[in-house]
Amino acid sequence: AGKKVGLLDVDLCGPSIPRMFNVHQQDIHQCSEGWLPVFVDKEQKLALMSIGFLVENEQDAIIWRGPKKTAMIKQFLKDVVWRDLDYLIIDTPPGTTDEHISAIENLKAYNPDGAILVTTPQAVSVGDVKREITFCRKTHIPVIGLIENMSGFVCPNCTECTNVFSKGGGQALAKEYHVPFLGCIPLDPELSKSCDEGKDFVEHYEGSPTLQAIQKVVDRLVKIDRDLP
Amino acid sequence: AGKKVGLLDVDLCGPSIPRMFNVHQQDIHQCSEGWLPVFVDKEQKLALMSIGFLVENEQDAIIWRGPKKTAMIKQFLKDVVWRDLDYLIIDTPPGTTDEHISAIENLKAYNPDGAILVTTPQAVSVGDVKREITFCRKTHIPVIGLIENMSGFVCPNCTECTNVFSKGGGQALAKEYHVPFLGCIPLDPELSKSCDEGKDFVEHYEGSPTLQAIQKVVDRLVKIDRDLP
Repeated sequence: AGKKVGLLDVDLCGPSIPRMFNVHQQDIHQCSEGWLPVFVDKEQKLALMSIGFLVENEQDAIIWRGPKKTAMIKQFLKDVVWRDLDYLIIDTPPGTTDEHISAIENLKAYNPDGAILVTTPQAVSVGDVKREITFCRKTHIPVIGLIENMSGFVCPNCTECTNVFSKGGGQALAKEYHVPFLGCIPLDPELSKSCDEGKDFVEHYEGSPTLQAIQKVVDRLVKIDRDLP
Repeated sequence: AGKKVGLLDVDLCGPSIPRMFNVHQQDIHQCSEGWLPVFVDKEQKLALMSIGFLVENEQDAIIWRGPKKTAMIKQFLKDVVWRDLDYLIIDTPPGTTDEHISAIENLKAYNPDGAILVTTPQAVSVGDVKREITFCRKTHIPVIGLIENMSGFVCPNCTECTNVFSKGGGQALAKEYHVPFLGCIPLDPELSKSCDEGKDFVEHYEGSPTLQAIQKVVDRLVKIDRDLP
C-alpha cells in the first residue's frame, strides 16, 4: 500500500486497460517533458498508459505491422512522464513477438524484475505459456511466477465447482519448469462484469472467494518482491 | 459433406491447431511442388498447415518480429500444395496486425469470401471485435458473420445457466454493425477437453446441446455460402 504504480498496456490492437479502469473517455495530455499518463486515483498512485487514450474513437482499428508497433512501445517507455514509480507493470498480449521483444529491448538497461505469466488450465493454453517460458529463458528475463486464470467455476445456484477448462494445468506447468506458482483465480461472472464496467472489484466484492484468491496471489508476489536482491 | 477443406493456422507464436486435431506429432514433407499439408482423415478431405508441424519441439518459442511472420504466411499461402480445395479456412490470432494484413494481401487476387469473426459476450472482447470489423471494412473484406463463443455455462449438477462472461454482447454487436449473427456456442468442459485431447467432438458427443449449437452455426454458414454469388 502507498506504492506508486505505472501500468502500461502494450496490446496495441486490443487495448482493454482504459475500459477496465473506467477511464476510457480520457485523453493523453502533452507537457514539455513528454506524454502525461492517465491517473486512476486522486492521490496519483496509479498511472496508466494505453493506445486506447490516443485514438479518437474506441472502435478505431490500429492496423499496424510490427515496426510501427515497435516504435510506439519505445515511445511509451521513453517519452511518457512516469515520474518516480515504485513499479512499472507492462500488460502484453499473448505470444512471443514484436510487443514482447520491444518491451524487453527497451527495458534491458533498467534490469527488469521479470515476467509474470498467466495461463488457463487447458493444455492448449499451457502450450502457449510453455513457449513464453522458453522466450523468457532465451532473453534472460527471470520468470517471477505463474498464475492460473479461469480456474474452475462455482455454480452460484448449487455451489458445485466445475473445471470448465480442465484442471491443474498451471500448477503442473510451474512444477515442470521450476517456476513459482502464484495461485489460481476462478471464473467469476462478477469479476468479468467488474472488468467490463470498470468497477473496482476490491471495493465492491469484499469477502468474495474470488477476491480472496486474488489477494493470495498478491501476497505471494509481495513476498517474492521482498526477497528480491 | 464431401467437400475438401484446408485449414491454415497463422498463429505463429501460439499454434494450437495440430494439438486440437491430434496430429501434433506429425511433420511436414516436401515434394517437388512444395510443402505437403498434414491430412487429418484417410480420405484426405481435411488438410492442415501450421508452424507447429515445422518446429522440432512443441515448447520451442517462435521469437519472430512482424517481417519474419509476414514471410512465413506468404510461404504458407504460396508454397503449400493445397491442391483442389473447396474451402480454405485461415485461423488467425486476435487483432488487426501482421498476420491479418499478410493473409489479406496474399489472398486479394483470389477474391476471398470474407471473414468470420468470433467474440465472447464480454464488453472488452466485443470492443476488440469492433476494431476487427473496422479493419475488414477498411481492407474491403466482407464480414460473413459473427459467432459468440463462451456464451453461458449450464451447470452439469443443477442445469442452471450462468452467463459467466456477461450476456448478449455478440448479438448486439452484429445488430449494431449490420453483420449476420451466426449463433452462440456455450462454455462446455467437454468441448474444451476434446480440443485439448484432439478428440473428434462430433463423434464423441452426438446429441449434446453444445454440438447442436455448433451445428446451427454451421447450417447458417452453409446457407450464406449457397447464397453467395
